[in-house]
Amino acid sequence: MRVFSNLTYGFAGLGLMGGSLAKAIRAKLLNSHGAEGKILAMDTNAAALAVAVERDVIDEAFEPEAAAAMLRRCDVVFICLYPEKTIEFLKKHRSDFKSGAIVSDISGVKTSIMMSLPDILREDIDFICGHPMAGSEKEGFYHSSEYIFDGRNYILTLHSENKPENVVFFKRLAGALGFSRITETNYALHDHKIAFTSQLCHVIASALVDSAEDAEITAFGGGSFEDLTRIAMINAPLWTELFLANRTELLAHIDAFKLSLEKITAMIRSADGDGLCRELEAVRLKRTAMSTIELTK
Amino acid sequence: MRVFSNLTYGFAGLGLMGGSLAKAIRAKLLNSHGAEGKILAMDTNAAALAVAVERDVIDEAFEPEAAAAMLRRCDVVFICLYPEKTIEFLKKHRSDFKSGAIVSDISGVKTSIMMSLPDILREDIDFICGHPMAGSEKEGFYHSSEYIFDGRNYILTLHSENKPENVVFFKRLAGALGFSRITETNYALHDHKIAFTSQLCHVIASALVDSAEDAEITAFGGGSFEDLTRIAMINAPLWTELFLANRTELLAHIDAFKLSLEKITAMIRSADGDGLCRELEAVRLKRTAMSTIELTK
Repeated sequence: MRVFSNLTYGFAGLGLMGGSLAKAIRAKLLNSHGAEGKILAMDTNAAALAVAVERDVIDEAFEPEAAAAMLRRCDVVFICLYPEKTIEFLKKHRSDFKSGAIVSDISGVKTSIMMSLPDILREDIDFICGHPMAGSEKEGFYHSSEYIFDGRNYILTLHSENKPENVVFFKRLAGALGFSRITETNYALHDHKIAFTSQLCHVIASALVDSAEDAEITAFGGGSFEDLTRIAMINAPLWTELFLANRTELLAHIDAFKLSLEKITAMIRSADGDGLCRELEAVRLKRTAMSTIELTK
Repeated sequence: MRVFSNLTYGFAGLGLMGGSLAKAIRAKLLNSHGAEGKILAMDTNAAALAVAVERDVIDEAFEPEAAAAMLRRCDVVFICLYPEKTIEFLKKHRSDFKSGAIVSDISGVKTSIMMSLPDILREDIDFICGHPMAGSEKEGFYHSSEYIFDGRNYILTLHSENKPENVVFFKRLAGALGFSRITETNYALHDHKIAFTSQLCHVIASALVDSAEDAEITAFGGGSFEDLTRIAMINAPLWTELFLANRTELLAHIDAFKLSLEKITAMIRSADGDGLCRELEAVRLKRTAMSTIELTK
C-alpha cells in the first residue's frame, strides 16, 4: 500500500482549487501528519507561483514550458485547469508522466474527459477522474485555503483501468485533506446529477440577479436573496464552459425546474391556498429528508 | 424621550419571531443594558409559555382569553402573528391597548395591514408597522434565539399618524436588539421589494426542491444546492398566506425572473459561448455591486 510519505505531489494549475489542494497537502499531510514529501506546481501566473514558494505552500515553481520536467518527477499529479484545458494538457503531456504516477483532475464535467480516455490513458499511469465538490465565488491562488474541503463531497468517476489499490490510496488522501464523503459513480450519472445540484443552481442564481431591478435591493434583504445569489459572483469563462459541456443534461433540468416553477406559479395566480399549502408542505418534507441524509452520511 | 427602562413589553404570539424578540429584549436590554422592565406574553401554546417563564424569558404568561388584561399593562407591544391574524387581533383588541402604547407588528406583507389602518388606529396609541428581516427554517419558540437579528435589516412602513419621537424610540430599540440597518419606506415599495428579495426566493427554492428527482441528491452537493434550498424547509401555512397576500407583486417578479432564465437558457441551448460569458460577467458585476452596498451600509 502506497503511503503519503516520500511522494512528490505536482500541480498543473495553482488557482483557487490547485492552491487549496496544495495548501491542504502541506498543512494536513506534510506538516501535521509528519509525512515527508515535496510539492511542485506549474502555472501561467508567475506572481502567484512566487508567492506560493515564498509562503512555503510549494517547494518548486515551474513555467508552463517546463511542465514536462515537473511531471517526470511527480508521483501524484492534480490537473487543476478548466475542463477543455485539462483534456488538452493530458493529451499533450501523455508521455511526460512518471511511470506509476497517479494523475487526477478536478473538472466539474466528466463525459468529455471520459470520452477522451483513449488519448489520455497509459498502461503505467493511473488516471483517477475526480470532482472535489468545493469552491468559492472568489477566484485564484490568493483566495485559496486548505479549509474549503472540510466536510465536503468528493466524487470519483472511475473506469475499468483504475487499479483498486490506487483508488484506495486516493480515497485515503481525499479523507486526509478534509473531505467527509467520497462517492464512486460513473461519468454519465455524475454529469446528470451535477447538472442539477451545481449547474442549474448557478443558472438560477444568475437569472435571479439578472432580473433584479437595481443593486440597492439588499436594503430589503433578509438573507434569502443573499444566500441564493452568492454563487452568481461567478467565474464567467469557467461556468460558460461547464454549462456548454453539459448542455443536454442541464437543459433537461432547466425544463424540469420550469415545470415546477409553473406549477407553483399557477397556484399563486389562481389564489389556490389549499393546493399551495399542500405543495409547500411536500417541499418542506422533501428538503428536510435531504438534510437528514446530509447529516447522517 | 422615552427610555428603555421601567417599560412593560408585551407579546401577542411567542413563536420563532416573538420568542426571539423577547429573548433579545431580555438579554440585550434588561440584563446587559441594566434597564428595569417586564416582559409579558400571550400565546395559544401553553407549553411554550411555561418554558418561557421557567427560563426567565418572560415574566408572566397569558392565555389568549386574557389578552386584553395583558395589553392594558403594556407600553410596547409586538404582535407576532401571521399577517391575517395580526389584522384580526389589532381590530379585536383596538380598545384594549394602554393609552400611550407603541404597538408594532412583524408581518412580511404590509399593504393589507395599511389598508386596515382606519379600523386599527387610535389617537392615543402609536402603531409602527415594521418588518424585522430575519427568521429561520425552524419554527416555534423552541428555535427562537436572541441572536437572529444581529446585523439584519428592519424595515418600517410609516404612516402620517406616527409620532416622530416614538419612531426615534423604536429605531433605537431595534438597534439595541441587534439590527444594523433600519430603513423607512412606504408599504407599497416594501411589498414590491420584498416580493423580490424574499417571496420570489422562497418560490424558486421550493420549485428547485420540487424538481429534484430524489432526496439522495446531496451526495452530489457542493454547497450551492444546499444554500439555495435551505429556505425550502418552509413554514407552509405562513408562506402560503404571504404569497397570496402579495400575489400581484410576486407574479410580476416571477415573470421577470422567467424572462431572465429564458434569456440564459436560450444561450445555453444555442451554445452561444460568447453571449453566455458576457451575460455571466454582467451578472457577476451586478451581484458584486450588491455585496459592496451590503458591506458599506
